[in-house]
Amino acid sequence: MSERPPLEPIGHLGFAQVDHAREARNGVPEVVYGEGKSAAQIAAIVARLVERHARALVTRLNASKAEEVAREQPGGHYDPRSRLMWWGRAPETLRGTVAVVCAGTSDLPVAEEAAQTLEWLGAPVARLSDVGVAGIDRLLAHREALARADVVIVVAGMEGALPSVVTGLVRNPVIAVPTSIGYGASLNGITALLGMLSGCATGMSVVNIDNGFGAAWQAARILALVERGPAEPPASFSLPT
Amino acid sequence: MSERPPLEPIGHLGFAQVDHAREARNGVPEVVYGEGKSAAQIAAIVARLVERHARALVTRLNASKAEEVAREQPGGHYDPRSRLMWWGRAPETLRGTVAVVCAGTSDLPVAEEAAQTLEWLGAPVARLSDVGVAGIDRLLAHREALARADVVIVVAGMEGALPSVVTGLVRNPVIAVPTSIGYGASLNGITALLGMLSGCATGMSVVNIDNGFGAAWQAARILALVERGPAEPPASFSLPT
Amino acid sequence: MSERPPLEPIGHLGFAQVDHAREARNGVPEVVYGEGKSAAQIAAIVARLVERHARALVTRLNASKAEEVAREQPGGHYDPRSRLMWWGRAPETLRGTVAVVCAGTSDLPVAEEAAQTLEWLGAPVARLSDVGVAGIDRLLAHREALARADVVIVVAGMEGALPSVVTGLVRNPVIAVPTSIGYGASLNGITALLGMLSGCATGMSVVNIDNGFGAAWQAARILALVERGPAEPPASFSLPT
Amino acid sequence: MSERPPLEPIGHLGFAQVDHAREARNGVPEVVYGEGKSAAQIAAIVARLVERHARALVTRLNASKAEEVAREQPGGHYDPRSRLMWWGRAPETLRGTVAVVCAGTSDLPVAEEAAQTLEWLGAPVARLSDVGVAGIDRLLAHREALARADVVIVVAGMEGALPSVVTGLVRNPVIAVPTSIGYGASLNGITALLGMLSGCATGMSVVNIDNGFGAAWQAARILALVERGPAEPPASFSLPT
Amino acid sequence: MSERPPLEPIGHLGFAQVDHAREARNGVPEVVYGEGKSAAQIAAIVARLVERHARALVTRLNASKAEEVAREQPGGHYDPRSRLMWWGRAPETLRGTVAVVCAGTSDLPVAEEAAQTLEWLGAPVARLSDVGVAGIDRLLAHREALARADVVIVVAGMEGALPSVVTGLVRNPVIAVPTSIGYGASLNGITALLGMLSGCATGMSVVNIDNGFGAAWQAARILALVERGPAEPPASFSLPT
Amino acid sequence: MSERPPLEPIGHLGFAQVDHAREARNGVPEVVYGEGKSAAQIAAIVARLVERHARALVTRLNASKAEEVAREQPGGHYDPRSRLMWWGRAPETLRGTVAVVCAGTSDLPVAEEAAQTLEWLGAPVARLSDVGVAGIDRLLAHREALARADVVIVVAGMEGALPSVVTGLVRNPVIAVPTSIGYGASLNGITALLGMLSGCATGMSVVNIDNGFGAAWQAARILALVERGPAEPPASFSLPT
Amino acid sequence: MSERPPLEPIGHLGFAQVDHAREARNGVPEVVYGEGKSAAQIAAIVARLVERHARALVTRLNASKAEEVAREQPGGHYDPRSRLMWWGRAPETLRGTVAVVCAGTSDLPVAEEAAQTLEWLGAPVARLSDVGVAGIDRLLAHREALARADVVIVVAGMEGALPSVVTGLVRNPVIAVPTSIGYGASLNGITALLGMLSGCATGMSVVNIDNGFGAAWQAARILALVERGPAEPPASFSLPT
Amino acid sequence: MSERPPLEPIGHLGFAQVDHAREARNGVPEVVYGEGKSAAQIAAIVARLVERHARALVTRLNASKAEEVAREQPGGHYDPRSRLMWWGRAPETLRGTVAVVCAGTSDLPVAEEAAQTLEWLGAPVARLSDVGVAGIDRLLAHREALARADVVIVVAGMEGALPSVVTGLVRNPVIAVPTSIGYGASLNGITALLGMLSGCATGMSVVNIDNGFGAAWQAARILALVERGPAEPPASFSLPT
Repeated sequence: MSERPPLEPIGHLGFAQVDHAREARNGVPEVVYGEGKSAAQIAAIVARLVERHARALVTRLNASKAEEVAREQPGGHYDPRSRLMWWGRAPETLRGTVAVVCAGTSDLPVAEEAAQTLEWLGAPVARLSDVGVAGIDRLLAHREALARADVVIVVAGMEGALPSVVTGLVRNPVIAVPTSIGYGASLNGITALLGMLSGCATGMSVVNIDNGFGAAWQAARILALVERGPAEPPASFSLPT
Repeated sequence: MSERPPLEPIGHLGFAQVDHAREARNGVPEVVYGEGKSAAQIAAIVARLVERHARALVTRLNASKAEEVAREQPGGHYDPRSRLMWWGRAPETLRGTVAVVCAGTSDLPVAEEAAQTLEWLGAPVARLSDVGVAGIDRLLAHREALARADVVIVVAGMEGALPSVVTGLVRNPVIAVPTSIGYGASLNGITALLGMLSGCATGMSVVNIDNGFGAAWQAARILALVERGPAEPPASFSLPT
Repeated sequence: MSERPPLEPIGHLGFAQVDHAREARNGVPEVVYGEGKSAAQIAAIVARLVERHARALVTRLNASKAEEVAREQPGGHYDPRSRLMWWGRAPETLRGTVAVVCAGTSDLPVAEEAAQTLEWLGAPVARLSDVGVAGIDRLLAHREALARADVVIVVAGMEGALPSVVTGLVRNPVIAVPTSIGYGASLNGITALLGMLSGCATGMSVVNIDNGFGAAWQAARILALVERGPAEPPASFSLPT
Repeated sequence: MSERPPLEPIGHLGFAQVDHAREARNGVPEVVYGEGKSAAQIAAIVARLVERHARALVTRLNASKAEEVAREQPGGHYDPRSRLMWWGRAPETLRGTVAVVCAGTSDLPVAEEAAQTLEWLGAPVARLSDVGVAGIDRLLAHREALARADVVIVVAGMEGALPSVVTGLVRNPVIAVPTSIGYGASLNGITALLGMLSGCATGMSVVNIDNGFGAAWQAARILALVERGPAEPPASFSLPT
Repeated sequence: MSERPPLEPIGHLGFAQVDHAREARNGVPEVVYGEGKSAAQIAAIVARLVERHARALVTRLNASKAEEVAREQPGGHYDPRSRLMWWGRAPETLRGTVAVVCAGTSDLPVAEEAAQTLEWLGAPVARLSDVGVAGIDRLLAHREALARADVVIVVAGMEGALPSVVTGLVRNPVIAVPTSIGYGASLNGITALLGMLSGCATGMSVVNIDNGFGAAWQAARILALVERGPAEPPASFSLPT
Repeated sequence: MSERPPLEPIGHLGFAQVDHAREARNGVPEVVYGEGKSAAQIAAIVARLVERHARALVTRLNASKAEEVAREQPGGHYDPRSRLMWWGRAPETLRGTVAVVCAGTSDLPVAEEAAQTLEWLGAPVARLSDVGVAGIDRLLAHREALARADVVIVVAGMEGALPSVVTGLVRNPVIAVPTSIGYGASLNGITALLGMLSGCATGMSVVNIDNGFGAAWQAARILALVERGPAEPPASFSLPT
Repeated sequence: MSERPPLEPIGHLGFAQVDHAREARNGVPEVVYGEGKSAAQIAAIVARLVERHARALVTRLNASKAEEVAREQPGGHYDPRSRLMWWGRAPETLRGTVAVVCAGTSDLPVAEEAAQTLEWLGAPVARLSDVGVAGIDRLLAHREALARADVVIVVAGMEGALPSVVTGLVRNPVIAVPTSIGYGASLNGITALLGMLSGCATGMSVVNIDNGFGAAWQAARILALVERGPAEPPASFSLPT
Repeated sequence: MSERPPLEPIGHLGFAQVDHAREARNGVPEVVYGEGKSAAQIAAIVARLVERHARALVTRLNASKAEEVAREQPGGHYDPRSRLMWWGRAPETLRGTVAVVCAGTSDLPVAEEAAQTLEWLGAPVARLSDVGVAGIDRLLAHREALARADVVIVVAGMEGALPSVVTGLVRNPVIAVPTSIGYGASLNGITALLGMLSGCATGMSVVNIDNGFGAAWQAARILALVERGPAEPPASFSLPT
C-alpha cells in the first residue's frame, strides 16, 4: 500500500480507517473512543493523527491502559478524573464562554470531561459545581453569571432536575448531560436522561449518559458558528406540499 | 345469611367483602376503587358503606358510569375533573393545612383528586397551581406560604422536578405525586415517578402515578397524628444483634 | 385581584400563573402546551399572552379543540399537520438558516412542527424531506447545501440513523428529533431516541420523541446567539480542585 | 475568598457549595452522599459541617473509604452494616416512636440505615425484624404494638408485600422502603418498588430502593411536625376555577 | 382430501391443523384461543372439535364475535364476564376442590375465567372474593376452609401480594394469577406478575397476566393426577455426572 | 426471654423470627435464603431449625460462606453446583416421580438445585439433561418416559422453548424454570421467563429465574397431595353474583 | 423543476424523493410504507413508481385508506388480511421455494404479508399453517417437505418457540418473524422477538415484529442470489491485524 | 450402556446428549456453547465430536478455561479476540464470498467471531473494518466491492446505523449483528439491536447482540444453498382459505 500523506483522505491501518478528511468536513480531527480498543491500537491511531493533524484526543480511557499508551506514544497528558488523554490542542482560541454547571460533587468527573474537552477544542470554560436543586439558593446566587454564558452545559444525575431550572433562567442554548450517579430508581442514569428529555423548559437538548465529551463538542460547534457568523442560505432544498 | 349490622365486621355481598372494621383499624371507612367494577357493584357497595358509616368515596370513576351509579344510589356528588364521587364526608375537621401544589395546568385533575379527597377526609386544603420549575420565580413568590403548610403535596408530570425543589424549601413532610402528563420519553408518568424516587432532596416520599387520592390519604394520616399527638411507645419489639 | 399589566411579572388566572417575565428572561414569551388543558383554559391563557406580548403559540393541539379555541379567541392560525396554533409572530427576522431535514414522508408532521415553530420565532427555514439512509444518494445530493445551513434539525423515526450520517457531513450544530414512526421494535420512538443518543457522530444533541417544537426552540436560541455575538465572560464561577 | 463563618449561607469549597442555610430552612444540616466522592472531598465537607453545625452524617460509604475519611477527620462512628458514618448527633430528642419493621433478615442493612439515621436525628426507634408475609402470624403477634407506633417504616425486598399488610393494620402513616434483596424477577428491587407503589392499601408512601435513609428523614419530619403542632394556615394560595 | 374421522390425528382445515390427538396425549381436547381469529375460523374449528370430541371451549372471545360464532355454530354458552364460550363439557367430574380466591371485586372477570374453565373440565370449584391484604382479617376468616382446598388459585392485581400470604397458610399447591387491574406503576399487570414470581413464600407457581384459563388447566391436571395416583417411575433417564 | 421449645411457635433470635409453626401449616419447616445473610446469622438459624425439626436447608449459598457456616454448625452437606447446604432430610419418602428435564448442559446447576431439593423433601427424582429443542429427536426419544412422570420440571435458558414442547407431550403438571443462561437478548433470563409465561401450551406454570428450589417445592406439594388424596371440600366460601 | 423521466435517479415530489435508482442498486423498486402517510401522498408516489417501474407495493395500509388510494390510483389489488396493496408484479419468476410456516391461525395475517410479498417479488411460496409446538406432531408430519424448501420463513407469536425447532430440522436458511399475537407477558410481540434472537438453534435470523414483508424480502434476495450464483470475490478489502 | 459409534444418533454423556445426527440434518456438526460449562464438560463433548466428525468448535470461551480444555483435549486452536476454539475444519471450501464489515475498531472481536466461524465452515471471507457512518466516505469508497459480496455481515454497536446504509447499497442478503459496544443509552447493545430490527432498509435480518457466530452460520447456510441450487418444491403444504 503506497500512500502519500498529504493526499490520502483515509489512513488505512487495517483494523482502522483513520478519517483524515474529518477536519476539513467537521472542523476538528477524528477523536478516539478508548473503550474496547487495545492500547496498541489506540497508540497506532494516535500516532497517525498526531502526524497529520498535530493533535489527538482519546476518551473513556482507564488509567492502566493510559499508561500503556503513554509508553508507546509519549507526549500526551492524562487526567484520571475525566479519563481523557490528549496530545496538542486547538491552534486557536474561540471567543465566548461555555459554563459547565454540575449538580453535585459526585457529578464532577463528567463535568470535567466536558470542561477539558472544551479546553482541548479551544473554548473558554467557566465552572460552577454543586448547585443541585435541593438548595436552590446556591444556583440563584449565580443567576446573572449564568445569563452571561454563551452556552450552558448542565451536568446532573439522580432525578436530573437542574437543566430545566437553568434553562428557565437564561436565553442562550443549554445542553444537558445526565450522569449515572444515583442508585435504585435512578437506573444508572436512565432516569436522569428521560427526565431531561421530558423537561418542561424549552431551549435545551440532551446528550448520552455521562457524555460530557459530546456536550462539549456540541457547545464548541455553537461557539465556532458564532465566530463565523451566519452563512449564505442554501437555495436548493425542496418544499413539502 | 342472616347478619346483624352492628356486629358484623365484614359485609358479605358475595362479589365483595365490605371491610366494616376498617374504620376502627385505620380511622376511615373503606373506599371504593371504581375501575373494573360495574355500576351495579359500585352502587351496592356504596349502599352498604353509607348504611354503616354514613359516608362513602369512589375513585377513578368515569362520567358515564357515575351517572348509572347516581341513578341506583342517589345523594352523591360527582366531579368530572377529579373523577371522584362521594356521599357524606368526615364528621369533623382536622387542624393544620395541606398545600396541594401542581406544576402545570395540565396536572390539575390529579391535584383536584388530592384536594377533594382531603376535603372529604376533613383536612383543610390550600391550592397553588402552575408553578413549574421552568419559571422558578412563580414558586419562589410563595416560599413563605409553602413553609407554613403542615404537609405539602406536590403534583408534577413530565420530568417531575418540582418536588425536589419544594422539599429543599420547607421543613415539613412532602408527598410527591407523578402524573402521566407528557409524551415520548415521559413514558406515561414513569419518568416523573422514577425521577421523584431518585430525587436529591430528603424529606419526601412518593405515591403511584396520578394517585392524588393516595397522597391525600397519607397527608390526612399525618394531620390526624398531629391532632392526637404521640402515643406511648410500644415496648415489645425485639432488637437485632 | 387588582393587577396592573405593565408591572406584574406573573399573570394570575387561578388555574395558571402566566409567566410574563419569561420574555425578558428567555427572549420569547411562554408557549402553551395544549394537551391536558381544556379549550377554555387555553383560550384564557392565550388571551393574556396576546394582550401582553402580542403573540402566542399553542402546541400539540388537536383539530377539534383548536376549533373551540378559535371560537373563543379569534385571529389565530391552525395547521392540522403540525398541530400548532398561533397568533402573531416574532417582531423581527433572525439571520442565518435552519435546515429541517426529515428521513421519510411519514415523519413530515414532526418536521413541520419544527419548521413552523421556527417561522413563528422569526428564523429562516430550508426544508429537505424523504432522504432516509436506505437510499443514501438522495442525501448526498444535498451535501453542499447541508454544509451551508447554520443549524441542522434532523427528524427521523424507525432506527433513527440519519442524524449520525448528517452530523458527519457538516461542521455546524445538529439537533436530532426522534419520531414515533415505526412499529414493533421501534417502541413508539424509544428506539430512535436511544439510537440518536448513542450515535457515533459528535456534534449533535437530542430532544424528546416527536418534539419538533423543542428542536426548533434550541435552534432559534443558537441563531439568536449568533446574532448577538459572544457576551463578556462571567467572572464569578468557582473552580473545582 | 474571605468568608466569615457566622454570616455566609454557602460554604464555598470549589468542588462543593456547602449549604449552611439548610439547617434554617429544613431543620437539619446538609447530609453527605458518600458514593462518587473521594475520601478527601468527603472529609473536607464533613470538616466544614462539623465546624458550623457540630454534627455531620455521611451515607452509602464503604468500609475502605470510611477508614480514609476517619484518618482525615477523626471523631466519627462508622457502622459497616448501615454504611453510615456520623459525627455528633441531634441536640435534642423528639417525642413519639418510629417502628422500623423489616420483612427478612437479609433486609436488615437497609433497616439499620433507617434506624440509625433516625437515632442521629433524635427520633426514638423500635425495631421489628423478620416478619415477612409468608408466616403472617409473626406479624400479627405484634399487631397492637404496631398500632401504637407514631410512624411505621416497612422495609421489604422480593415481592414487597409487607407494607400493604401493615398499612391495613394501623392508622398512622406508613413509609415503605423496597430493598434490592431477591434475584431474577425481583430486578434488583424494581419489582418491590413497583409493587409498593401499586399497593392496594391507602396511607403509605414510598422511597427509593434501599433508601432507609430517606424513609427515616421523612419519618423524622413527621415527628418534628407532631412536636410543633399545626401552623397558622398560609393565606395566599390561589384557587383553580 | 378424503379423511376418515376415527383415524386422522390431525384435522386439516387449511388455515388450521386441529390437533385431535391432543385428547389422547394431554387428556383434554384442544382449546381455541379466540383473539386474532375471525368468527368464521372459530366456528369451523369448533365444528370439527364438537364432531370429534363432543365438546369445545373458546377463550378470550369478545361479545360481538361470540354472537357471530353462535350464529354459525349454535348450542354453545357464552359468559361476557369470563369471555369464555363452550359447547358440552367434561364427561365426568373430578374429586377434590379447587379454591378460586380473588383479591378484589375488579379481579372477578379473571377469577371467573378460572372458575368456569374448571367447571368445563369437571373440577369442583369453591369461590372466595374480595379478600385483599389491605384488610387481612377477611382472608384469615377463611383460613381453615383454604387449608382444606386441594388446589388454590389466587387471582390478584395491583401489587399482587395475596398469593404469598395464602401460600404461607396452606400445604397444598397454590397457582397465582396476576391481573391487569391497577394503573401507573402496576404496568398493566407486569408488577403483579413480577411480584408473584419474586414471592418469598414457597409452594406456588405463576401463570401469565389475566390467564385464569391457564391456572385452571394446571389445577385440573393436578386433580386428575390425584385421581389416578402415582404412575410407575420411568426407568430410562440418564444421570448427570 | 424465657421460651420453652415445645410450646413456642416463633423462635425469637432478634435478627430473625424463626417460624416453627411452618411445619404444621405447610408440611415442611422453614428454609433459609442464604443471600444477604452473614454466616453467623445462617448458622444460628440453622441451629434452631435442627434443634426443633431435625433438618434444615439453606439455598443460594456460595462456597466460601458455606465453609464458614460448616465451621459453626457441623454435620451438613454442601453441593457447590446447586449451592444448597442441608442437615438431615425428610423423614419419609413420597410416592411418585418428578422428572427434572433440562435443555442444555449449562442449565445443570439450576436443575440440580431442583433435584436435590426434591431429594431433601423425600421426592423420587428422574433426571434428563441436554434435550434442547434444536435437536428435537433427543427429547422425543424419551417421550414415553416423560409421560410416566407424575410431575415434570423443565429447566431452560435462552429462548425457553422446551417447556411448551414438553407440556404438549404429557398429561401431568409441568413446572417451568427459566434460567439466566444466554447473553444479549436473553436479558439474564427475563426472555426465557416471559416466553414460558406466554407459552402456547396449557398445563404448565412458571417460577422465578434460576429458581429450581421453588419448582421442586411446588412439585413436592403436588406429590404430597397425591399421597393424601383429596380432602373434604370447604363449605363456607361465598359465590359471586 | 424540469426533470426528464428516463434520466433522473430521484423523483422529486417535494414531500418525497422517490428513489428510482433503487431498482438498479437493489434489484427491486422502492416500496411504500403506508403508515403515517396520507392517501394523497401514497397515490402520488405510486403513480410515479408505476410510471417508471410498471409496478408498486404499499405495506401496512388499512382498508379505508386503501379505498381512497384506489380511487386516485386505480388498477391495484388490496388484501385486507395482509394489508398489502399492489400494482403489477415482478416480470419474471424465481426458481426455488420459500416455505411460509406459521404457528397459529391467529398469526395468519403476518404470514400472508410474507407470502403475498414473495408472490409480488416472483418467488414461489408453499404455505404451512397452525403447526405450533404444543402439538409437535403436526410439524413433524411435514419434516421432509420442510427440508426441501430453499428458504423457510417461520411466523410465531406468544413465546415464539417454533423457529428454533424448525431450524434444528433443516439445513437451509430460516428467517423468523415474531408476531404481536398474545397478551400479558407476551408484551405485544417483544417476548417472541427476544426469544427468537436468543434461540439455541443456529442458522436463523430475525426481523421486526409482524414484519412478514421484511422476511419475504430477505428470502427473495436469497433466491435471487441462488439464481445468479456466486460473484467474483471483491479484492480490495483490508485485513485487520 | 453399550453403544456402537457408527449407529448411535445421540452420544449419551449423562450431562450431555451429543446430537450426532445434526450433521446429517443441518449439514454441520453440533457446536459447543462455552459459557456455563466446566472445562471438563467441554473437553468431554469435544472429544466425542472429534471422534465422530473430525472437527469441533467451541464459542464464547474465555482464555483461562481454554487453557484447561487444551490440556485435556490437545490439537485445538484458540483465538482470544474471538474467544473461539476449534479442532479441524470443514472438509471442503464453499464458493462465493462473505463480506464481514464492521463499524468501529471496538467492534472487531465480534467481527472476528463471525469471520473465523466462516473460515471454520469453509466459507471465503473478506474483511472491511472501521467504516462507521460518521465518516460515510470510508464506506462509499468500497461501494463496488460490497456489491460483489454474495452475503454481507454488518457488525455495529452504539446506534447500529451501518446495516441500513449497507443494505441500501447492495442487492444480496445482509445479516446485521449488533454489538454491546457503547455506554449509557446504548444499553449494552439493546439499542443497536432494536435499531437494526426497526431499520428502514429492506433485505436484512438480525441476530443476537455480539452473535457473530450466528450471523456466520446463517451466511454459510446461504452459500451452501447457492452451491446446491434450488431443490424440487415440496408439494404437500396446505393452503389457508
